Amino acid sequence: MYVYDFRDGDRSMADLLGGKGANLAEMTKLGLPVPPGFTITTEACRHYLLSGSNPDGLEAEIATHVATLEESMGRRLGDPRDPLLVSVRSGARFSMPGMMETVLNIGLNDESVEGLAQVADDPRFAWDAYRRLLQMFGKTVLDIYGEEFESRLDAAKEAAGVATDVELSPEQLKDLVGQFKDVIARESGAPFPQDPHEQLMRAVRAVFDSWNTERAVLYRRRERIPADLGTAVNVQAMAFGNVGEGSGTGVAFTRDPGSGEKGVYGDYLPDAQGEDVVAGIRNTLPLHDLEQLDKPAYDELMSIMATLESHYRDICDIEFTIERRKLWMLQTRVGKRTAGAAFRIAIQLVDEGVISMDEAVERVTGAQLAQLMFPQFATDSERDLLAKGTNASPGAAVGKVVFDSATAVAWAARGQDVILVRRETNPDDLGGMVAATGILTSRGGKTSHAAVVARGMGKTAVCGAENIEVRSADKVMRVGDVQVAEGDVISIDGSTGEVFLGEVPVMQSPVVRYFEVGLDAAIADVDEPTADLVRAVDRIMRHADDRRRLGVRTNADTGPDAARARRMGAQGIGLLRTEHMFLGEHKKYVEKLILASTDDEREAALAALLPLQIADFTDVLDAMDGLPVTIRLIDPPLHEFLPDRTELAVEVALDKERGQVDEAKVQVLREVNRLAEQNPMLGLRGVRLGLVLPGLFALQVRAIAEAACALRSQGKDPRAEIMIPLIATAAEFEFTRAEAERVLAEVEAKNGCPLGFAIGTMIELPRAALTADRIAESAEFFSFGTNDLTQTTWGFSRDDVEAAFFSPYLEMGIFSVSPFESIDRQGVGELVRMAVQKGRATRPGLHCGVCGEHGGDPDSVHFFDEVGLDYVSCSPFRVPVARLEAGRSAIERAGGKGSDTR
Amino acid sequence: MYVYDFRDGDRSMADLLGGKGANLAEMTKLGLPVPPGFTITTEACRHYLLSGSNPDGLEAEIATHVATLEESMGRRLGDPRDPLLVSVRSGARFSMPGMMETVLNIGLNDESVEGLAQVADDPRFAWDAYRRLLQMFGKTVLDIYGEEFESRLDAAKEAAGVATDVELSPEQLKDLVGQFKDVIARESGAPFPQDPHEQLMRAVRAVFDSWNTERAVLYRRRERIPADLGTAVNVQAMAFGNVGEGSGTGVAFTRDPGSGEKGVYGDYLPDAQGEDVVAGIRNTLPLHDLEQLDKPAYDELMSIMATLESHYRDICDIEFTIERRKLWMLQTRVGKRTAGAAFRIAIQLVDEGVISMDEAVERVTGAQLAQLMFPQFATDSERDLLAKGTNASPGAAVGKVVFDSATAVAWAARGQDVILVRRETNPDDLGGMVAATGILTSRGGKTSHAAVVARGMGKTAVCGAENIEVRSADKVMRVGDVQVAEGDVISIDGSTGEVFLGEVPVMQSPVVRYFEVGLDAAIADVDEPTADLVRAVDRIMRHADDRRRLGVRTNADTGPDAARARRMGAQGIGLLRTEHMFLGEHKKYVEKLILASTDDEREAALAALLPLQIADFTDVLDAMDGLPVTIRLIDPPLHEFLPDRTELAVEVALDKERGQVDEAKVQVLREVNRLAEQNPMLGLRGVRLGLVLPGLFALQVRAIAEAACALRSQGKDPRAEIMIPLIATAAEFEFTRAEAERVLAEVEAKNGCPLGFAIGTMIELPRAALTADRIAESAEFFSFGTNDLTQTTWGFSRDDVEAAFFSPYLEMGIFSVSPFESIDRQGVGELVRMAVQKGRATRPGLHCGVCGEHGGDPDSVHFFDEVGLDYVSCSPFRVPVARLEAGRSAIERAGGKGSDTR
Repeated sequence: MYVYDFRDGDRSMADLLGGKGANLAEMTKLGLPVPPGFTITTEACRHYLLSGSNPDGLEAEIATHVATLEESMGRRLGDPRDPLLVSVRSGARFSMPGMMETVLNIGLNDESVEGLAQVADDPRFAWDAYRRLLQMFGKTVLDIYGEEFESRLDAAKEAAGVATDVELSPEQLKDLVGQFKDVIARESGAPFPQDPHEQLMRAVRAVFDSWNTERAVLYRRRERIPADLGTAVNVQAMAFGNVGEGSGTGVAFTRDPGSGEKGVYGDYLPDAQGEDVVAGIRNTLPLHDLEQLDKPAYDELMSIMATLESHYRDICDIEFTIERRKLWMLQTRVGKRTAGAAFRIAIQLVDEGVISMDEAVERVTGAQLAQLMFPQFATDSERDLLAKGTNASPGAAVGKVVFDSATAVAWAARGQDVILVRRETNPDDLGGMVAATGILTSRGGKTSHAAVVARGMGKTAVCGAENIEVRSADKVMRVGDVQVAEGDVISIDGSTGEVFLGEVPVMQSPVVRYFEVGLDAAIADVDEPTADLVRAVDRIMRHADDRRRLGVRTNADTGPDAARARRMGAQGIGLLRTEHMFLGEHKKYVEKLILASTDDEREAALAALLPLQIADFTDVLDAMDGLPVTIRLIDPPLHEFLPDRTELAVEVALDKERGQVDEAKVQVLREVNRLAEQNPMLGLRGVRLGLVLPGLFALQVRAIAEAACALRSQGKDPRAEIMIPLIATAAEFEFTRAEAERVLAEVEAKNGCPLGFAIGTMIELPRAALTADRIAESAEFFSFGTNDLTQTTWGFSRDDVEAAFFSPYLEMGIFSVSPFESIDRQGVGELVRMAVQKGRATRPGLHCGVCGEHGGDPDSVHFFDEVGLDYVSCSPFRVPVARLEAGRSAIERAGGKGSDTR
Repeated sequence: MYVYDFRDGDRSMADLLGGKGANLAEMTKLGLPVPPGFTITTEACRHYLLSGSNPDGLEAEIATHVATLEESMGRRLGDPRDPLLVSVRSGARFSMPGMMETVLNIGLNDESVEGLAQVADDPRFAWDAYRRLLQMFGKTVLDIYGEEFESRLDAAKEAAGVATDVELSPEQLKDLVGQFKDVIARESGAPFPQDPHEQLMRAVRAVFDSWNTERAVLYRRRERIPADLGTAVNVQAMAFGNVGEGSGTGVAFTRDPGSGEKGVYGDYLPDAQGEDVVAGIRNTLPLHDLEQLDKPAYDELMSIMATLESHYRDICDIEFTIERRKLWMLQTRVGKRTAGAAFRIAIQLVDEGVISMDEAVERVTGAQLAQLMFPQFATDSERDLLAKGTNASPGAAVGKVVFDSATAVAWAARGQDVILVRRETNPDDLGGMVAATGILTSRGGKTSHAAVVARGMGKTAVCGAENIEVRSADKVMRVGDVQVAEGDVISIDGSTGEVFLGEVPVMQSPVVRYFEVGLDAAIADVDEPTADLVRAVDRIMRHADDRRRLGVRTNADTGPDAARARRMGAQGIGLLRTEHMFLGEHKKYVEKLILASTDDEREAALAALLPLQIADFTDVLDAMDGLPVTIRLIDPPLHEFLPDRTELAVEVALDKERGQVDEAKVQVLREVNRLAEQNPMLGLRGVRLGLVLPGLFALQVRAIAEAACALRSQGKDPRAEIMIPLIATAAEFEFTRAEAERVLAEVEAKNGCPLGFAIGTMIELPRAALTADRIAESAEFFSFGTNDLTQTTWGFSRDDVEAAFFSPYLEMGIFSVSPFESIDRQGVGELVRMAVQKGRATRPGLHCGVCGEHGGDPDSVHFFDEVGLDYVSCSPFRVPVARLEAGRSAIERAGGKGSDTR
């Protein structure tokens, strides 16, 4: 079955009937006044798209449904006396506004237009309807350039000396119809089809085809809508809002979509069709005015809207038409809203008793919460909007304009905030992008190099602001008459895509402030809407925390970071990267350690490092007192601690040329050359280094144990977990574990302080996942390092590839999202699932977490919940996002409604 | 049940009873004269090793079996009048000669020694037996330094003025026993246990413990014997060969282990115990002499050996003892043999009707065949043996001695063959190792850095020749009085570990000659043993080819290589690496292509490359006419075609310093910097490059198609298969396939030459294996790139890690073999298995091969056969090895006997 009458469907069938079709069916089921019609399924569309032809029986099914429609309307398609007219509208699973096609007034031809004129007693209306059909059919079905029609319409209005279409006389419209038919015959090589059934079938096919227009394809990629869903097609009896006084059309929300406050919000346009509202030719009236114009219709509409809201249990967004005082409902859907409104509306609906707290949590998303946490431009500040581009990477950035990477680096080094402005970026610009506070380009969208790299860096970016002309050579950019020179200040809003001249004050998000200082302090001196928002966030977060199964930890390497994350709700540290400690002030000792040529030198370097490491660990364990702190032993390759090889080689060569050879430098170069690796990511690092460089891991374990014993003696409760990185095979773990246990036992005995710290491993190589059953024989916990696991599973290193080919890959649709941003379920995710199962087969209840950056990505959090991890760990700022999504996932898995938040 | 009487086991139970125990049981079952006894299982040993104590009930079981033994012998352990004596011997699943422990004469004590003296009527024998027990028990069970006993024995002999033990008088031996008991009491802190049951249990435990002595652990690692098998323990009534005339002991083979010729070979030592033969104190007699000494015993032995050979259907190696003219069999096993003998013996046994051709193929190994294919030193040449080390990497190499890497590189660059001699090597020596013909070290064994790296390079190496003193600073090495200076010529045999002074002539292997020129030509002018060997190889190879299911292709990039591989039996090319072509004379065009800054420049570079590529492909397709040739589109990262970044940076800096700036060079450096990658292995390469660099893949496909069409027009039958590298996700393949199909269609149409070439993919990333079902929707074949798959699955790059940590990893036993050498079944192999299953679930019968170097590794070939690949592909030289192993695998899988070839 490829066709469903509106009376045979409901809102649960959106996959098959599309969003619009499912909601039309739902309204029909509720007994609301919906013009009758039917929906051709997405399945039929998919068949057509794959095979190039309609599925068998589709045309017969449509014919049957048309006959039913004719019967219920008492009119026939193409009837020369009183024709039935229908609309043909696309309607996919996910809304793709403006992307796809509509043809109205199907059923008109040279004969039936006369009948319509007579029946309606309005020749102008009839000929205008025919004119509209020809125009839409020409553009949509026959692919004729729209200007061919629009220019003739404009000429006719000019000739008639009128400003709007409705002022044209029937004769003038009739003449225009003649011209449009000529255009069609000439451009398409055949006359406009007079057979209404042919009109209908060709319109349906045009809607199918519109799924794959370039703009639709691009839109889907941007919005991460799967490419293979296809669209449904809705065929519906026409209702006319443009048949004079007592008619009109409107759109409305069942409550304020900004604040969620009760009461109806909308616009009404008398004597008009829906398309006229979109075209914006005439000014609309506030919906309340309809009460004066047509009280019965208004009252009916209010009653219907109340019905819809209580039925959908959410704010609804509707379209309606009044044809000669008869109200028709043309569409409804759950209304879109801003991030802030989403939280406020959810809580208001709870307070009104409409939805439960579970549902409220489902109604908001981590992405919305993240949006509320970015710094924002102060709302009450003056702004001078210069341009608008794509909101490529969120945040608010203010700085001096620079036009090249070198200047960006130089000025940033002097402590200045800069905005790097380029037509588009390429890998040469990486240095400047790192140095800049924000990035602005005049070319490219969300998948451009600039956008991809900026998001990877967490840097604010606006891309593709096309009305900006960037002249890098002249160090200037222009928007119309406005010229901005190097050094001038601009402000860019990566969440809205707006670009402002001058400095716009940036303020901390009130939601972040709430996490930092708590509810009462956060709402002490803000306006009421902000306070309302913060209270809503508070209630939703608390409920999400109640419901979630998944723990949320943080990735933090210092005491202050740990403390901050704890305020954000982190329940421990999932990843403390000890190498960050080694890269700071300790670097010189590490260099000594690596370059040591005797055991004594190495011992001395290790001895110098020990007190520094103890201090490092003490800070973090103290900040996370009473909560688990997973400490990863040193992971990166040795040479990261050494000088750059090429730079050093150049220096030594120049020294030699100048006769100033520095033997120590030459010696360092020799060691650097010896340690140089082709692929350091795949080289001597992690556990390999621990096994090959004597004393390094032991030093770290000793420092952890000493720090913990010292804290214990102060009555504290340090809870370290020791994590061994880059395990590929169980034997590596077993060797390292034995050494760590020996050191722990030694320090425990010395201090009379039994610690009982667990020793576990990162699972970050495919082989570790594949042999997790063996590894779990001795590893006491797993933590999935999904960054590295993504690198090895896909065989690309993040450093190299994001710049080199992620941008073209996203453009081509090979990725819909970077696998470093959101977990790749088919590949990397499959390994995670396998490793959890294998690990727990060996060691039931094995504690498993994830410490890759995916731990803070909403979609990934749901995946990790699904595969049964115990916790996710993410950067402090993402902790609230992970908490919320963990709550949403728990509710969903407990059978929540799974509201469509797209 | 932890203990089996010899009468209750058989040879199939070697896992449980160990090799020795199983064969003792088998001989018992055959009714041969085996001293009665019982075997304690490997399971008991494993329990002991894991838990530190004997399994429950073991001691009771042993007591029961001792009682049965006492009954059948009519003597009791420790009986002061007529004591039963037993031996306690280890016996693991795989022979570990000299590695583990034996205690003889258990059951003697201060009282029973007198009884034995009386019963044997030989006090000297009795006191010598007690002396031996004390000595072995002291060393083995009590871990007393052997010198404590040996020095006293020597002193006693000196005092007595005799040369051998047997010349000591009973009184002198009695005195020695007293001294030994004192040593034991002093060194172990307790007197020698007089209770024979305690002696027995402690000896059993000592054998268990001997599994984990350092030398046993090292031996197992070297021989790739699993560490967790444990050993069985054989307890057996003593038979004495040292009770005067009419007694003795011997070892024998049932036929000549060198040539396989029929007839008995062995040695006999009258009036001696087995340990005396090993000690080599007295000269043995040829076994035939026994016929004169004791005709009945000799005849019985001949009859038993005939029985054994026909029972085992293979050459057997035995130990026996004659006690007062009574023959006792102490051991038998299938005899070890050289590689050449293995082939000849197998065929002789076939010709004698003893075994089938299937069995003959099972009796030889690919490793043995490979050994026969290495160049060898001419057998009849004069040789001056200088030293002997470990046979670390096979082959025969002759060259001038150098002592440092720099000299090796310099001399090799002048066209000289050099042998790099070092105490041991480290990563600094890599350049020299690449340049050298062979490598010799005085330290380290088969897992040393030198050995691991040399095997990886396929370079001849002898390691750990410990009597060589290497003085690199003086550029000299010494062996005793002989001094070898830099520039002197030596010859090293990597298959035997021998080092010769001067040049030993190297000859091509007759087996390689056979593959090159065929049987008749190969045996035309060689000696008969060689001809016999070549004929044996020929028959075995032909039978292996008949039986194997798995195809064998080769990895070859040039016409001559392809032709050579075809002679070696390759059934096509499994991997033609097009980048090798690009690195030769074409490199300059590739550099132009990469550095092209305009479309025109790029087009010009591509146009210049096209005819060169066509010529390349024509050569190879012609050489493999009629057979499949899988051509991999270009795979390595761009910068491999560009100058070295550090070198170029130094040059440019020096130019600048000298005021001689070369703008073109600066420009190249800029590009090289732009293209530089942190981890090129994980960067822009393979399909990624093909998708990002327009025209490159299309050029290659065009060249393949043009070459094929040209060959077709000459009546040839070129059969290319186009392979796309580094696929991680199906979409990459689909995009590339579409472009390739477009180009193929174009060339086919232009030349009127339909080609119908299949387009498939490498599976060389974990994600490709995990999503093989999706990829198989459009890929027409799979080829597993197990080199890269190993790199990403384990997360290490071969370039970096073999040098950096494979050597310590092999020493530690983390690897028993490099995963680049033999497929890692648990990790990489699991992905291969998964991908084959998933791929064929989508596309039944999907053609799958392997083109990593594992394709030529014997163990890996069996694995690939097991998982159902269609072919393996390997270097030309390994093709015969793969053919043989594919045959062996097929026979084994068809239910072959699976002879133990270890």
